[in-house]
Amino acid sequence: MTTGGPPPASRDALEALVEALRRLPGVGVKSAQRMAYHLLQHDRPGAEALAAALVHAVRAVRHCARCHTFTEGELCRTCADPKRDAKLLAVVETPADQAALERSGGYRGLYFVLMGRLSPLDGVGTREIGIEPLLARAGDGTVEEVVLATGFTAEGELTAQAIAAALKARGLKVTRLARGVPVGSDLEYVDLSTIAYALHDRR
Amino acid sequence: MTTGGPPPASRDALEALVEALRRLPGVGVKSAQRMAYHLLQHDRPGAEALAAALVHAVRAVRHCARCHTFTEGELCRTCADPKRDAKLLAVVETPADQAALERSGGYRGLYFVLMGRLSPLDGVGTREIGIEPLLARAGDGTVEEVVLATGFTAEGELTAQAIAAALKARGLKVTRLARGVPVGSDLEYVDLSTIAYALHDRR
Repeated sequence: MTTGGPPPASRDALEALVEALRRLPGVGVKSAQRMAYHLLQHDRPGAEALAAALVHAVRAVRHCARCHTFTEGELCRTCADPKRDAKLLAVVETPADQAALERSGGYRGLYFVLMGRLSPLDGVGTREIGIEPLLARAGDGTVEEVVLATGFTAEGELTAQAIAAALKARGLKVTRLARGVPVGSDLEYVDLSTIAYALHDRR
Repeated sequence: MTTGGPPPASRDALEALVEALRRLPGVGVKSAQRMAYHLLQHDRPGAEALAAALVHAVRAVRHCARCHTFTEGELCRTCADPKRDAKLLAVVETPADQAALERSGGYRGLYFVLMGRLSPLDGVGTREIGIEPLLARAGDGTVEEVVLATGFTAEGELTAQAIAAALKARGLKVTRLARGVPVGSDLEYVDLSTIAYALHDRR
């Protein structure tokens, strides 16, 4: 007799799938069940496509030898592009942040992707975000300015400060993205600390 | 030059993974990117485990020949259990609803799992939720009472009404789960239509 737990049928394969889906970030047990039911009931080709994409990505995707972002070759396309300005190096947290900078169209330099940010409470220190490869990359003799483009969160700021200290100790020029009022915002709806920074950094 | 779109590196395998993850219900492009980055950066064994679980579930999981729920054998464990009361048949929308009824410990009969509910606006009619197999199952000569345990949403009620009409036309006894005030609720916080039903169905 079953009086609790998962559906009484097909516990093994279905349960294993729900467990595997729960390893995705932001997916709890209810979401994982809904995903599993959906795939098995309505989209088995989608389940097979996802399995194939996972296997292929795990096999093919590695880190760019220069900037550390995801790539399938030795170098990513940005690092391999001779038209980029090799004197500028932007430090970002994730490939998504890098994509946002690219979309802005305002940056022509190269990148270093930390693949994370300092988070001492979670045990993520300077070693985990690869500060040594970054220092080696920034000190290659070509880079003249490092633009810190980590997020303006507490952890992003902490990361920027730690990297800035290490780079300045090596005599490199370090800048930070400007803080201020977002384009398109009414001042009325902007938080007070952003307004304070915008006042302080007024041009 | 890339000024828009996804991260400039590794577009193929990573992009394909993001696309595949977007087929999961409730996952948009931002979530899919976060999932893909997380798996590739922090949990490649998790990605491989998910791929294997997907392949195994697609291959192994099918529908129980009697109740239509997910199972790996010809019959699910509930239908194969001789201690269940075969005179009672509960109609539920999903395996998750079946599991909820099981957890209540108050039901000893068998099930029919619709794997959905009527949703005319989405093109889900009586054929899609398998009303013919249900009528055949309920009319097997053993079932004496069909308990409609679809949800108390608009679509769940519509489903229950359609099934009730078809079953009654065949002379079967049909009951519906009671509506009323949830256990542990203050009346103050219960919605008005629930209170109205609880008054109407008072014992």
